[in-house]
Amino acid sequence: MSLVLALGGNALGRGTAAEQLTTLRGTCAAIAPLVREGQVVVTHGNGPQVGNELLRQERAADEVPPLPLYLAVAQTQAEIGAMLETELAAASSRQVVCLLTHVHVDPDDAAFKNPSKPIGPFYSAEEAHNLERERSWQLVEDAGRGFRRVVPSPDPLEIVELDGIRALVSSGAVTIACGGGGIPVVSRDGRLKGVDAVIDKDRASALLARRLGAARLVILTEVPAVYRRFRKSSQEEIRELSPDEAEALLPELAEGSMRPKIEAALDFARTGGETLITSFDALGEALEGRAGTLISKT
Amino acid sequence: MSLVLALGGNALGRGTAAEQLTTLRGTCAAIAPLVREGQVVVTHGNGPQVGNELLRQERAADEVPPLPLYLAVAQTQAEIGAMLETELAAASSRQVVCLLTHVHVDPDDAAFKNPSKPIGPFYSAEEAHNLERERSWQLVEDAGRGFRRVVPSPDPLEIVELDGIRALVSSGAVTIACGGGGIPVVSRDGRLKGVDAVIDKDRASALLARRLGAARLVILTEVPAVYRRFRKSSQEEIRELSPDEAEALLPELAEGSMRPKIEAALDFARTGGETLITSFDALGEALEGRAGTLISKT
Repeated sequence: MSLVLALGGNALGRGTAAEQLTTLRGTCAAIAPLVREGQVVVTHGNGPQVGNELLRQERAADEVPPLPLYLAVAQTQAEIGAMLETELAAASSRQVVCLLTHVHVDPDDAAFKNPSKPIGPFYSAEEAHNLERERSWQLVEDAGRGFRRVVPSPDPLEIVELDGIRALVSSGAVTIACGGGGIPVVSRDGRLKGVDAVIDKDRASALLARRLGAARLVILTEVPAVYRRFRKSSQEEIRELSPDEAEALLPELAEGSMRPKIEAALDFARTGGETLITSFDALGEALEGRAGTLISKT
Repeated sequence: MSLVLALGGNALGRGTAAEQLTTLRGTCAAIAPLVREGQVVVTHGNGPQVGNELLRQERAADEVPPLPLYLAVAQTQAEIGAMLETELAAASSRQVVCLLTHVHVDPDDAAFKNPSKPIGPFYSAEEAHNLERERSWQLVEDAGRGFRRVVPSPDPLEIVELDGIRALVSSGAVTIACGGGGIPVVSRDGRLKGVDAVIDKDRASALLARRLGAARLVILTEVPAVYRRFRKSSQEEIRELSPDEAEALLPELAEGSMRPKIEAALDFARTGGETLITSFDALGEALEGRAGTLISKT
């Protein structure tokens, strides 16, 4: 059975590299039972890491040219990939590799007209004004904390390196791919061009799972399951969802948090795949059907 | 015929991402005839890029933790790999992929006792003193420009992701690997650990060529060929070198420049491979035997 396993931010840790490696060691111990055999692709987020990298770019901007966002996303694929690769290889006793992954987006995606994803450091009103003028960025005020750049979050359409991922998986390697949702690119003049956007990593993971014909997508996040009436007194943990039930639940889910996960699961369920959403603490029980939320057709 | 093609700094460019992409476009047009068919792995240096990244880490160090050098090397594999991948795919009409690559080094390599490779920004005497104390770095004074960190440059022993590179090459993809000489790692307590060192990219490329059983290694550098009495009035361009001739030439070659390239070529020649050293301007003529230097047994 082939599997795509999507790791959220809390599975990756933050802080120094040593702190991230410690978190990753725990994560890799928890996921090792899933990763020890079969065809496995691991994807991951990059929120704190890309934020740090963008801040580094800004602080050195007078001395070395800042890289565009899509290259900062690329950098985080390697930074996180290098740490995850060595920890997961040790925990699973398998070969683990990391393939740089670009993802096609549509230049006419509505997201480009409505950048909505906040990213990078906070700026003063004056800095924000200058950045809008000098770099054509869009910035929005974030309640009391200052101004922050917002970028589009377009839908992922195709995984550029899909054949490469297939070749690596077929060779027996656990393959890390689509880090941070992938490096967003558009086709123009016969070549791929990076664009300043970020792709939701769960949507990219569901696309990858569909294209690979994977049987299962596991999304590891901060909560052990999906809930009805989340954080209300009548909160209710959901064990199973059909596509129709999942669709009906969407309006009450938090945008940019659980909602894109359920949307990703829905896409995948409609092509016959099943998605398990859980935390890595609850993963063991979830694999036995006693925790987590399973979204599938049947 | 399978080929490893090693790109030097001038093939990659420097400056903004747009400037680097322009340089890469020219490079990829020049190498396209070599890359259009057959099994090809492309390696590359990362000098300016890792220098920029280390400077970014330092300038933001009060706000976000600097990454260790080995992760900065990883970042440059993705940064350069992303740009090179899209430009080379456009120039060659082939699938191009980039695999994150770690390279084993020996923790007892003599280089660890004698760090010699200067890297990253310049510091004042006071900053240098603090960095030596706080981070256990070694720094050396560089004639009039300040103090600079020096790191070990150990010999590459094995390519960790060799099987992955083989799988990608066999699948028909031009594969970018071993960027910046690879991420240096040692084995410790059953896992790979990154070490703060840099590996010479030509030595790593020759190791990769040997392990892949490649027929040919092409090293693209700043000069069209290897010379006897380089930059003297009696300078003489060398068209062919046997291993013995190459070995005899070593003492007069510049350390950290042409010498490691000839050493890499020597290693490869002794296992039956041939190495062509040339510039990308002279590549066309070199492929016809009218420029460049060929090091081989025959």
